[in-house]
Amino acid sequence: MKAFMDADFLLDTETAKKLYHDHAEHMPIIDYHCHLQPKEIYEDKKFRNLAEVWLGAGDRYGDHYKWRALRARGYAEDSISGPDDDYKKYLQFVESMPYFVGNPLYHWSHLEMRRYFGVEEIINKENAKAIWDKANKVLEKLTAREMMYKFNVKTVCTTDDPVDSLEWHKKMNADKTLKVRVRPAFRPDKAINVELSWFADWVNQLSKVVGNPISSLDDLCAALAERIKFFNEMGSKLSDHALDVVHYAPATYDEANAVFLKGMQGKPVTEEEQDKYKGYILVFLSGEYAKYGWVQQYHIGALRNNSKSMLEKIGPDTGFDAIEDAVYMEKLSALLGELDKNGDMPKTILYCLNPRDNYALTVLAGCFQKEGVKGRVQVGTAWWFLDQQDGMRQNLETLMQVGLVAQSVGMLTDSRSFLAYPRHEYYRRLLCQMLGRLVESGQYPAEELPRLGKIVEDICYNNAAEFFGF
Amino acid sequence: MKAFMDADFLLDTETAKKLYHDHAEHMPIIDYHCHLQPKEIYEDKKFRNLAEVWLGAGDRYGDHYKWRALRARGYAEDSISGPDDDYKKYLQFVESMPYFVGNPLYHWSHLEMRRYFGVEEIINKENAKAIWDKANKVLEKLTAREMMYKFNVKTVCTTDDPVDSLEWHKKMNADKTLKVRVRPAFRPDKAINVELSWFADWVNQLSKVVGNPISSLDDLCAALAERIKFFNEMGSKLSDHALDVVHYAPATYDEANAVFLKGMQGKPVTEEEQDKYKGYILVFLSGEYAKYGWVQQYHIGALRNNSKSMLEKIGPDTGFDAIEDAVYMEKLSALLGELDKNGDMPKTILYCLNPRDNYALTVLAGCFQKEGVKGRVQVGTAWWFLDQQDGMRQNLETLMQVGLVAQSVGMLTDSRSFLAYPRHEYYRRLLCQMLGRLVESGQYPAEELPRLGKIVEDICYNNAAEFFGF
Amino acid sequence: MKAFMDADFLLDTETAKKLYHDHAEHMPIIDYHCHLQPKEIYEDKKFRNLAEVWLGAGDRYGDHYKWRALRARGYAEDSISGPDDDYKKYLQFVESMPYFVGNPLYHWSHLEMRRYFGVEEIINKENAKAIWDKANKVLEKLTAREMMYKFNVKTVCTTDDPVDSLEWHKKMNADKTLKVRVRPAFRPDKAINVELSWFADWVNQLSKVVGNPISSLDDLCAALAERIKFFNEMGSKLSDHALDVVHYAPATYDEANAVFLKGMQGKPVTEEEQDKYKGYILVFLSGEYAKYGWVQQYHIGALRNNSKSMLEKIGPDTGFDAIEDAVYMEKLSALLGELDKNGDMPKTILYCLNPRDNYALTVLAGCFQKEGVKGRVQVGTAWWFLDQQDGMRQNLETLMQVGLVAQSVGMLTDSRSFLAYPRHEYYRRLLCQMLGRLVESGQYPAEELPRLGKIVEDICYNNAAEFFGF
Repeated sequence: MKAFMDADFLLDTETAKKLYHDHAEHMPIIDYHCHLQPKEIYEDKKFRNLAEVWLGAGDRYGDHYKWRALRARGYAEDSISGPDDDYKKYLQFVESMPYFVGNPLYHWSHLEMRRYFGVEEIINKENAKAIWDKANKVLEKLTAREMMYKFNVKTVCTTDDPVDSLEWHKKMNADKTLKVRVRPAFRPDKAINVELSWFADWVNQLSKVVGNPISSLDDLCAALAERIKFFNEMGSKLSDHALDVVHYAPATYDEANAVFLKGMQGKPVTEEEQDKYKGYILVFLSGEYAKYGWVQQYHIGALRNNSKSMLEKIGPDTGFDAIEDAVYMEKLSALLGELDKNGDMPKTILYCLNPRDNYALTVLAGCFQKEGVKGRVQVGTAWWFLDQQDGMRQNLETLMQVGLVAQSVGMLTDSRSFLAYPRHEYYRRLLCQMLGRLVESGQYPAEELPRLGKIVEDICYNNAAEFFGF
Repeated sequence: MKAFMDADFLLDTETAKKLYHDHAEHMPIIDYHCHLQPKEIYEDKKFRNLAEVWLGAGDRYGDHYKWRALRARGYAEDSISGPDDDYKKYLQFVESMPYFVGNPLYHWSHLEMRRYFGVEEIINKENAKAIWDKANKVLEKLTAREMMYKFNVKTVCTTDDPVDSLEWHKKMNADKTLKVRVRPAFRPDKAINVELSWFADWVNQLSKVVGNPISSLDDLCAALAERIKFFNEMGSKLSDHALDVVHYAPATYDEANAVFLKGMQGKPVTEEEQDKYKGYILVFLSGEYAKYGWVQQYHIGALRNNSKSMLEKIGPDTGFDAIEDAVYMEKLSALLGELDKNGDMPKTILYCLNPRDNYALTVLAGCFQKEGVKGRVQVGTAWWFLDQQDGMRQNLETLMQVGLVAQSVGMLTDSRSFLAYPRHEYYRRLLCQMLGRLVESGQYPAEELPRLGKIVEDICYNNAAEFFGF
Repeated sequence: MKAFMDADFLLDTETAKKLYHDHAEHMPIIDYHCHLQPKEIYEDKKFRNLAEVWLGAGDRYGDHYKWRALRARGYAEDSISGPDDDYKKYLQFVESMPYFVGNPLYHWSHLEMRRYFGVEEIINKENAKAIWDKANKVLEKLTAREMMYKFNVKTVCTTDDPVDSLEWHKKMNADKTLKVRVRPAFRPDKAINVELSWFADWVNQLSKVVGNPISSLDDLCAALAERIKFFNEMGSKLSDHALDVVHYAPATYDEANAVFLKGMQGKPVTEEEQDKYKGYILVFLSGEYAKYGWVQQYHIGALRNNSKSMLEKIGPDTGFDAIEDAVYMEKLSALLGELDKNGDMPKTILYCLNPRDNYALTVLAGCFQKEGVKGRVQVGTAWWFLDQQDGMRQNLETLMQVGLVAQSVGMLTDSRSFLAYPRHEYYRRLLCQMLGRLVESGQYPAEELPRLGKIVEDICYNNAAEFFGF
């Protein structure tokens, strides 16, 4: 029996151990997509106790994975996202731990305790008080920045609204003491979701930010272009789009502008109109990104706000989202085909939240490659609910079989938490496990191990550095 | 090499063996969803020979899994569902056995022979006569009830039409000699499928049963409410719905009633009308179930009666059904959101026949939890065509990664056969295999084995007892 | 550690080795679906160098798998499908090899080098020159036919247009020196795709070939029937249909003929009209195939020509296709139900390019069996992008769990290349691995090994010979 989560956790062959300990383990981290708050990094946030940093207690940007598990356990919302006592919240999570058998929370939580706090105990109610005391002691010195340094994080890309002033990024760019490069990323979902009630308000906000009226789609595009330029000046190298459902249809400017005007008037917009408007603006933005050599990311397939009662009670983004099952390959193909009709589409990463689409998505990405770029369009690592062993394994297996895993830009956290960096370790261990098994089962020659070690280092760090131009 | 199907069948680690033999093996069975005939249980049916009980020979409620395999082998329908000689039917099945390599029938059939009849031989044509004689000898004493007692079955829920008088359940409730609690389950598909030709006839039948005219949707709802009350008095604790395709759209009473009236007149009903009618009545029924603390089950994704020629020849439910690939998450989300808009949705189990939807369904279920209930909405065990190692493994893996397997209510048979109980054993062995592998690969601590043993017992029995209130 | 790709490559149990070396390894090959050029077989093509035969250098019928990988590596199109020097093309492929870790190309390429050329070296840049020289030396004698003989290929079915004169097949039928039976297969996609711009031209071409005017759907059907008769006389035993999206709706002759007339006039055809026309003609063709005892193949789910810029630059079928995610089970069920309404549908093989549909497709196939035929309707082996270990494993696992793998007609190459035969070896090794694991984990009795060995031989060769009537 292998010891529980020891130094060779998940590494089940000698080759895997070698690949991990000699190559993966010591590579720095590029976390090119996350939801950390720039302010908290700049101000080097201190946490009042383990419950705050670990569970997001008292904070609506809590750890949704943990919140969902606690809800499934039947705990009261007050002791999850609500006003209950921090230690009570902590305790019910710790008591629940053994019942998370098979769930990534079991591993993540132990990795978090070990790597940040030096707590090696098994997490359960018997050890609860000792862990609480020990971790809180460590937290006295372990600030937000220190957490990032601990994991050798070189670059972090946050997720920012086009109207954002990027004031914290400005300050960080000027802060010589900050040892992580923090870059903004451009997330213009609100410019795209013309069907939502807050569309016009947001456009008006953007109008104020750029100091120009926005009364047509051309005006909107001009304003977005200006913000992209500004983001680029502030160090941004990539954008991000939440395409919960992929909308695309060829459209003239007049057709798209008509939909824009409807959206500004708060009128209902049909699916076909969304196809035209969203297609138009995605094509426009893609062209702008290309100008600056940015990477664009499409996050496809979230089904949001499923619980009406909880949406009313505590709002969106609190752990009540799920996975879409929409059919979208034809539209995505048409969209990508249009973006690349002149062969000049920017580098693009596609993510899908539904693992049933891994194969179709990975093969489609392979149709849009470009001379001089390794994996110009590629499928990103397993996302959100799929960011666990089974999801990552399916993602990597598909990437191996119908893509080129050696060129993957690898892991990101997509997290709101400073405690999420061990997920890079989790991913790296699994990657080395899979590659190790290939070698030891006679599927890849041991003679090529030096090159394979280099490939591991590339996936962990070098590929991302090169792809994003960090 | 591991011996063929020995005491440690499927148990490939010491931990798995421990979990199974010390915890899973001796837990009683709750078979909370099956299609056994109440009459046969009450009358303690005796079987004329092995062919009847094993293959359903001469009975249209035969074992569809076996029938499908025999058809694929190219045998004549007369010797499958038809009038041919019992021994001939038996023999062609036994001769086919080696060609079922990799199919669950190979394991089920051996488990059935061993656990019910003490027949340890490998099933093949060489052993055919000996097995026939030995098993038929055992059958002289092995009645329907004895089969249930042999497996320590504590509770069985049958599947019953709202118009059913439940006469056999009444008798069983009064029968002191019966050592299994047999409960009815409410299956109102015929009240829901407004588009089918027999809708009006069925409603009229219901009208007679309740002794009131049914000329509006309100009347129908009142009649169903009355039957739910009656079912509850007779011991029912759960309902079951076959949502082959998920229909839902918000609807006013008048809209839904208009569709009801069309259905009663045998007029064609559009998909959109079905969405409204079915949505309305599902919401109504859910509210009724909640009153009694019932559990509701949604079985999603069957594609039925695919062979026109066989439907004409031998009717429905004879082994010609398949798996839907419809898109349904948005509608299901909207339906569940509506059921829970006040937070008071009943406990609900979701099943989907298409394994490609495991992740989306399991994550969606996690959005509808409730204080004080462990896993208020959960995904059920692998169903029908998926009730085999690969299907169960995918189901359990998904439950582990994005749900909480520790809270699963576990296995059911969904079977028409008294010989189906070894499927609980099959499931338990696989469950212990998976959990054992987690422990022995260092993914769950050996120190927590006592708790893990208890978790196994919970999944095998305690969770169901608590969830259903048996 | 297992040695790299040794004699027991992929065979990880003693039983697997036994099954492979005693049974699978020496069975002849029936390649019942491929895209070899009849002319090249007849003329016994010689290849100018390794680049031509291995990469398809300078030939638009190149190896798309390799081309796609090279594009993902960022190489210029000129050095992939274009005019660049053969050795340059060869070298960049060889240099890329280590980066194909986990990709089937890594194994296929090594198998190709070893089995055809006796090159045992690991393929990488250090060995590039030596391999080039050695292989080119072998190529001096290794012609197209010799490549087929080397692998004991007994029968090959090419893919041919109904208007094809089959002149090369005629010559091959008369050629006593040819030791492989080369049969045409009927691929009438152009008669079916009424919505495409070249429909009318193609129908007119067919009209000339049969010497009759085609001015109605009846005329078209008559012409196709005549060509089927002709193909049958030339040795054809099967047809093939690319149903990228499954179209079917019940239609009268007049309805279908109206769509035909629109297509002939180049008018746009709606999805609903395609359903009617395509359904009608598929039903007609199925009836014709049945007359001759042919097998029909449906290839479902390709999404073609995704890159607009590359389609313009180098045309279709050059490596820019992908996978559909359309919903189609209801239509396919209705189509198959109609084909079999009298129980007389021809033998049929269903393939789907999207692995998420494996279960639904395999279960659906099981609904259309027939007395006297083993697996009358069955799911074919993993196709195109899925023709790799993970895809084949999922395909075989599904076939085992809900079908009967013992009756599978097994592997085909679907390839344009004479170097593709080792894929049969790859498949056979994986098959023996999976069956070996069943035996050694106690899931299939060692006592049945003689029968299991025979089953392996059947899947490798005998089943196909019997099913197709070769």
